Amino acid sequence: MANTEFGYVRNFEQWDPLPPSNWIVVRIDGRGFTKLCKKYDFQKPNDRRALDLMNAAAAEVLSQFVDVVLAYGQSDEYSFIFHESTALFDRRASKLATSVATAFTAEYCMRWTEAFPDSPLERPFPTFDGRCVAYPKRKVLRDYLSWRQADCHINNLYNTTFWSMVLKGGLSTTEAEQALKGTVSSDKNEILFSRYGINYNNEPLIYRKGTVVYRSYDAELGTNGEESRGKPADLTSKTQLKKEKKRKRKAKIALEHVDIIGETFWETHPYVLGSSTGKDSGE
Amino acid sequence: MANTEFGYVRNFEQWDPLPPSNWIVVRIDGRGFTKLCKKYDFQKPNDRRALDLMNAAAAEVLSQFVDVVLAYGQSDEYSFIFHESTALFDRRASKLATSVATAFTAEYCMRWTEAFPDSPLERPFPTFDGRCVAYPKRKVLRDYLSWRQADCHINNLYNTTFWSMVLKGGLSTTEAEQALKGTVSSDKNEILFSRYGINYNNEPLIYRKGTVVYRSYDAELGTNGEESRGKPADLTSKTQLKKEKKRKRKAKIALEHVDIIGETFWETHPYVLGSSTGKDSGE
Amino acid sequence: MANTEFGYVRNFEQWDPLPPSNWIVVRIDGRGFTKLCKKYDFQKPNDRRALDLMNAAAAEVLSQFVDVVLAYGQSDEYSFIFHESTALFDRRASKLATSVATAFTAEYCMRWTEAFPDSPLERPFPTFDGRCVAYPKRKVLRDYLSWRQADCHINNLYNTTFWSMVLKGGLSTTEAEQALKGTVSSDKNEILFSRYGINYNNEPLIYRKGTVVYRSYDAELGTNGEESRGKPADLTSKTQLKKEKKRKRKAKIALEHVDIIGETFWETHPYVLGSSTGKDSGE
Amino acid sequence: MANTEFGYVRNFEQWDPLPPSNWIVVRIDGRGFTKLCKKYDFQKPNDRRALDLMNAAAAEVLSQFVDVVLAYGQSDEYSFIFHESTALFDRRASKLATSVATAFTAEYCMRWTEAFPDSPLERPFPTFDGRCVAYPKRKVLRDYLSWRQADCHINNLYNTTFWSMVLKGGLSTTEAEQALKGTVSSDKNEILFSRYGINYNNEPLIYRKGTVVYRSYDAELGTNGEESRGKPADLTSKTQLKKEKKRKRKAKIALEHVDIIGETFWETHPYVLGSSTGKDSGE
Repeated sequence: MANTEFGYVRNFEQWDPLPPSNWIVVRIDGRGFTKLCKKYDFQKPNDRRALDLMNAAAAEVLSQFVDVVLAYGQSDEYSFIFHESTALFDRRASKLATSVATAFTAEYCMRWTEAFPDSPLERPFPTFDGRCVAYPKRKVLRDYLSWRQADCHINNLYNTTFWSMVLKGGLSTTEAEQALKGTVSSDKNEILFSRYGINYNNEPLIYRKGTVVYRSYDAELGTNGEESRGKPADLTSKTQLKKEKKRKRKAKIALEHVDIIGETFWETHPYVLGSSTGKDSGE
Repeated sequence: MANTEFGYVRNFEQWDPLPPSNWIVVRIDGRGFTKLCKKYDFQKPNDRRALDLMNAAAAEVLSQFVDVVLAYGQSDEYSFIFHESTALFDRRASKLATSVATAFTAEYCMRWTEAFPDSPLERPFPTFDGRCVAYPKRKVLRDYLSWRQADCHINNLYNTTFWSMVLKGGLSTTEAEQALKGTVSSDKNEILFSRYGINYNNEPLIYRKGTVVYRSYDAELGTNGEESRGKPADLTSKTQLKKEKKRKRKAKIALEHVDIIGETFWETHPYVLGSSTGKDSGE
Repeated sequence: MANTEFGYVRNFEQWDPLPPSNWIVVRIDGRGFTKLCKKYDFQKPNDRRALDLMNAAAAEVLSQFVDVVLAYGQSDEYSFIFHESTALFDRRASKLATSVATAFTAEYCMRWTEAFPDSPLERPFPTFDGRCVAYPKRKVLRDYLSWRQADCHINNLYNTTFWSMVLKGGLSTTEAEQALKGTVSSDKNEILFSRYGINYNNEPLIYRKGTVVYRSYDAELGTNGEESRGKPADLTSKTQLKKEKKRKRKAKIALEHVDIIGETFWETHPYVLGSSTGKDSGE
Repeated sequence: MANTEFGYVRNFEQWDPLPPSNWIVVRIDGRGFTKLCKKYDFQKPNDRRALDLMNAAAAEVLSQFVDVVLAYGQSDEYSFIFHESTALFDRRASKLATSVATAFTAEYCMRWTEAFPDSPLERPFPTFDGRCVAYPKRKVLRDYLSWRQADCHINNLYNTTFWSMVLKGGLSTTEAEQALKGTVSSDKNEILFSRYGINYNNEPLIYRKGTVVYRSYDAELGTNGEESRGKPADLTSKTQLKKEKKRKRKAKIALEHVDIIGETFWETHPYVLGSSTGKDSGE
């Protein structure tokens, strides 16, 4: 039963590295979460416990994958950004996507009881599919994140209005859907305010902005406000690389519900998409 | 905050369908299981509880993915075979790999306490990476499965001998490694028998052959022994497709520790790699 | 000016091998041939000189690439079939597509004057784009070839009718187009016969069937009619491989205008898609 | 003979677009040019007629493909740079590689007699393979071009020395090879100067630097030295796009033998890698 005769089957495996010098986004999405929301009776339009669970799982992913510089999540999706210089798994797409997706899933399932103590998890357990996307430039990556956050806003405004109509206004879901057809943002803001006394801008940030998770080095800032470690020295030696890895492991993992479309977040945290080598990456 | 301005970022996502008329193997592998084995003190050379846990997780994957016709597992790996005609997720590689890997991981983690009641699971939780491989012909797929089962045999014979030397023979791991360098199968069989009174062929099949999980229709055979449903009629109508899906869902999921290199298994279960449409697939 | 500093750019090149055990089709298509037909005043509905030129170029490609077992051409396209076992260029898609397309283009341009002695070729010279497609099974490859030949028939019947209406019937191209809208094959046959006295089935085979080019070993058949070399012995040694290559180089390159949708062609030339190693390829 | 039954084979064709916002390099290489050089007795170390032929073919490619902003060639290779924003052929790799390679090949073969009036071209005609590589950032693209030009220098210095030893020094090729083993640039410069009186820096630029071909707008500069059209206005309307295309077609195609590793060339021709839309591309 020698193995050599069959070994040729290995040649069918495709080598799937993502191109160098691209930011890698691993986005995961809940599979069949519409059904899951109903089954476990998630609150509408947003279930805080469910979002907290998503965020906790994302934080755990960051602590396991030191090359993730930032993650952004909303609803049942999360995007993990690997630095453009990452060499993790030789940048192989399938390894990256499955490793992140399974780490997230494991944490989500195992922590479920904490989030929903009265609703024990039943089979089929929640799972997440995932995919890798390569973004060649910082600006394009920023636009990707803006796209997801704009999507969060659009959906949340719609859902908040829709469920106000249903839960407070007594409309059927069909009636609410009909009523909202063709409305623009200002219409929905107006409906919320005039009919239900809701000022959308006072809604919790976690619902309106989603959640940003990042490896924070803010605490390391020197007393004079200078950033002490955000721009690390050139990493040429192995010792330096080890130090850098240790630094990442030690970094605090911050969760915030802030705007990432504008410049403020990025200007106050320049190291997040900063060069990991201290060298100009060519942009 | 309109989304249209950023929507172009979608174009960076690659469309990754696997080619039609190819058998799709999703193979998952435990990440960092060497460390995990030590941490939870797995028995050597095989930990039956760990294998049972793997097998239970695999069975759950089969029950969730009706297009998986067979799975084969050994050690910390499992290969799931999707029928060459599957249209699941439009055959997209990343969806298939992540969906299977997360379903397996969720089950593995959630069922852990059953398998290891005295060793509560700690972070980082066990995870599995995964990848898709497309095999163009039944024969090549069979060779893939033979490759994995031959690998199981080779590793298990080595490990059984190695750990006998260490645990029964009192050798250090380094000494055992040295002693086994250059030995062939017959040498190891001889060492096992002469030194430790072990007839390798009497070792449990689960260790020597690994585990085959498949959707079994054997019970459906007519009283006269004829196979009644293994070769379903041509599926042209939607009704037929629904019936077929229902039939798959109802099928018993069988776990066996049998040889799949020879012809016997395949001859006695011709429907496993049979045409799902009743049409000749062109081989 | 050392090169080491820039060498990293090599890592951006993608490794693009086509999967093993798949038939590789390189299909080339004339670029901008509608314009070219007008410029050089090609005869309608078919220009025999242009087709002969295509066929001559295809024959040259076969003589240069010994792993091409058959080619099929019609109009301004040609499909070259590489044996499923070919190892040419490590099966890299871009090398295969560009090598075939440039060899075809060179021959087409250089031989132009022979075909069109009164119309010297002007810039931009004719060129062909190309692509590789992998077909996992003989049957699927056969269906691919049937698809192209059925396409030849459909287009030629249409064009023959259309140009009869225009050239013989005096209709404008717009009128002919309108008149043919919604017609089926039998309608077109009827128009040809009743209006223009053309029995479509008597039209030249080259227009109705296209052209099949293959490496023919028919002449090598023994006097008793037995095929002497169509099924070569198992090729394990280098000597054998060299012999095989020599045999291919010596084979006559046959051009025929025959049906390849039915079984006859394939039954009378079993070696064309035969196993190159004498081993069963797994189908 | 309806075509619908076979149409499914189209699904095997892979969709192969290169990712957006990446510079696309199509590099072509002469196939079997070592043999060709001998056959047609190319002069050593450089054959000016052969290089001129390469350059003429490259210029023709630029005139046909308006989205090529620059090409760089040396020896029997040429790299064509498509602007990162090109939408040609929907950025499909196989279409781009084959279209460029066949256009180059056609020109090379058809113009051969002009370059080598006494050596008529024989079969097999010269051909070129090709491949696409995507470069995510201007800096990486610049490094790619530097890599090729540094390669030109290294090879030319070696070849100039080697052939001086053989042709002027009377060494055999084996002796020359041995003598040059382990030498560095300064050694070769010294050998050239002391033994053969050759100051390498006085060798023709075309041999030392290769050839840069680009779409030049230099003549369009206003009288006051201001660049009038290098940074076109934002192209939003179809009219604008047409104008832009026309402008490209009218541009002079310049051939120069200059350094492109340093900044000078790029600073004096900023439009070459400039934004085609006038918008910041995100770098």
